[in-house]
Amino acid sequence: MDPTALLASLKPEAKKINIAMQEDIRVIRDGLLREVLEHSLFNGGKRVRPLLSVFCARLCGCTDEALYNLAIAFEYLHVATLLHDDVIDHADQRRGQQTVNTIWGGTPAILAGDYLHARLGGRQCLDIICRATAAMVEGEFLQLHNAGNADLSATDYFKIIEGKTAILIAAVCEIGAVFGGTTVEQQKALRNYGSGLGQAFQVVDDLLDYLGDPASTGKAVGNDFIEGKMTLPLIHALCNAEPQEHDLIRSLLSEPEAKRRYHIATVRQLIEKYDGFGYAKQQAKILVDAATSELNIFTAGSTAETKAILIGLADYVLTRKK
Amino acid sequence: MDPTALLASLKPEAKKINIAMQEDIRVIRDGLLREVLEHSLFNGGKRVRPLLSVFCARLCGCTDEALYNLAIAFEYLHVATLLHDDVIDHADQRRGQQTVNTIWGGTPAILAGDYLHARLGGRQCLDIICRATAAMVEGEFLQLHNAGNADLSATDYFKIIEGKTAILIAAVCEIGAVFGGTTVEQQKALRNYGSGLGQAFQVVDDLLDYLGDPASTGKAVGNDFIEGKMTLPLIHALCNAEPQEHDLIRSLLSEPEAKRRYHIATVRQLIEKYDGFGYAKQQAKILVDAATSELNIFTAGSTAETKAILIGLADYVLTRKK
Repeated sequence: MDPTALLASLKPEAKKINIAMQEDIRVIRDGLLREVLEHSLFNGGKRVRPLLSVFCARLCGCTDEALYNLAIAFEYLHVATLLHDDVIDHADQRRGQQTVNTIWGGTPAILAGDYLHARLGGRQCLDIICRATAAMVEGEFLQLHNAGNADLSATDYFKIIEGKTAILIAAVCEIGAVFGGTTVEQQKALRNYGSGLGQAFQVVDDLLDYLGDPASTGKAVGNDFIEGKMTLPLIHALCNAEPQEHDLIRSLLSEPEAKRRYHIATVRQLIEKYDGFGYAKQQAKILVDAATSELNIFTAGSTAETKAILIGLADYVLTRKK
Repeated sequence: MDPTALLASLKPEAKKINIAMQEDIRVIRDGLLREVLEHSLFNGGKRVRPLLSVFCARLCGCTDEALYNLAIAFEYLHVATLLHDDVIDHADQRRGQQTVNTIWGGTPAILAGDYLHARLGGRQCLDIICRATAAMVEGEFLQLHNAGNADLSATDYFKIIEGKTAILIAAVCEIGAVFGGTTVEQQKALRNYGSGLGQAFQVVDDLLDYLGDPASTGKAVGNDFIEGKMTLPLIHALCNAEPQEHDLIRSLLSEPEAKRRYHIATVRQLIEKYDGFGYAKQQAKILVDAATSELNIFTAGSTAETKAILIGLADYVLTRKK
């Protein structure tokens, strides 16, 4: 499916998701809380998680409109994470706009995230959502331990991104399947699709951190390295680098964060020398191919269009620029 | 029931609650996350919320040991709130010990709170818990709007404490009743008992902020005023104060927080002049009396001991020094 056709298929569903969220937060009496949530929820988000859930449910034959009410839970969870992350990172920009903590301070940002967590209550499959959230926090802790660790292995990198990104995307797809009502095998296939997609998504995210255009990503280049986050391009380069290059990276990581920003060009050169970006792109491609091959289990002719959309979404993960 | 007998009745239940929490967090693989949670969960907490839930369930005839697994959810929710509050307030002490944000930084504190939220999943009555959490956040927002507002009315004060404290305590008691299996009237009575108790608890908390001994409360005197939080003793004093006394308080509140700490003695004098502390104590007593009278609906002889414990807990709210 070409990007234009994909976008055309996603748009009406994204609109329904937005409407469901708007109706859901209309009940909030507190004006500031509503304003904070509107700012964070309607901020150019692509609705990847709820869309995945909706299309996975459709793939399993679901026609129930209550689906949107379930799907928005994933956007809530995602946005709650972003709100708290921005406080943690003292981030002032998100999607090219000022963050909640910048405009209103850390207190409304933390509380609004907690509010979104509380809004998950009463939704179906909350167990799977909660397990995914707990795994997400464990992934963040693993990342925290490994900040500035020049010896982080690719295995541990994949453990981190599985926790912080892929488990939730897998849950999103699995819950779509559960809601749609399907066989255990199909449910498992959609969970695996989500997991591969989620990992690829994060690998590409980490690539964009080095290679993205700040004007479209809304983020500064090399932010991960500044924060001491070791990602696949650099891990791959270090796997092949000379001892003195290891020493160089180690010495840069031991400097205070404020100074690291002046060494991004050096780090990028090293990654390019060992084709770390090419390697990471290739890994993302392998993950996406494995993910889409899971969809082969759905053979019914009526599912062809939805399957094409899910494959299109997976391809989009590889080509996205922001 | 005298304090010694009450304590003797609470102790074995508190122990079972602690064991349930210990077993529950044993599954966490990440060493730091486990350490952070052990520090925050086993830190001299009185387990008021899970104990209330357990005894409300017992009052309704519940003998199911699975009750403890449900009850710990309330301690999780409470501790998650404390973790996030300490980040928001940049607090360095909690129950006489260093806070998580002081020892390990804001990131583990926010994430550990999120983890505890995620651990609520899969418990019974999650709907009631989530609604109470959402109300709690709304209460915090209402407090936020009114920081430094010298004209806060007693009505708005009670709205704030209902949201930030009482709704959760009411939910704790109601869920105990639901778990115990009881009539709608008894369920409602226990919800009202919890609501009154929760309000009284917060009124006393606000009293202790001015009158408590920092050595036993673990908190600095006058902290609420420093943060611009208007509480019942001062609201009552201002209701009766002269215009120039209003102006004085308004001018103190307009000073930067760092300077307000030097004016606590002045504020306390004003409160004492109009017997604001006596008034707040009296209001707490009225709330506790109304709360315990809700228990009259339980007339069975077999419930006498549990009823005495719940009345004892309510009395404890009035007499506690920390």
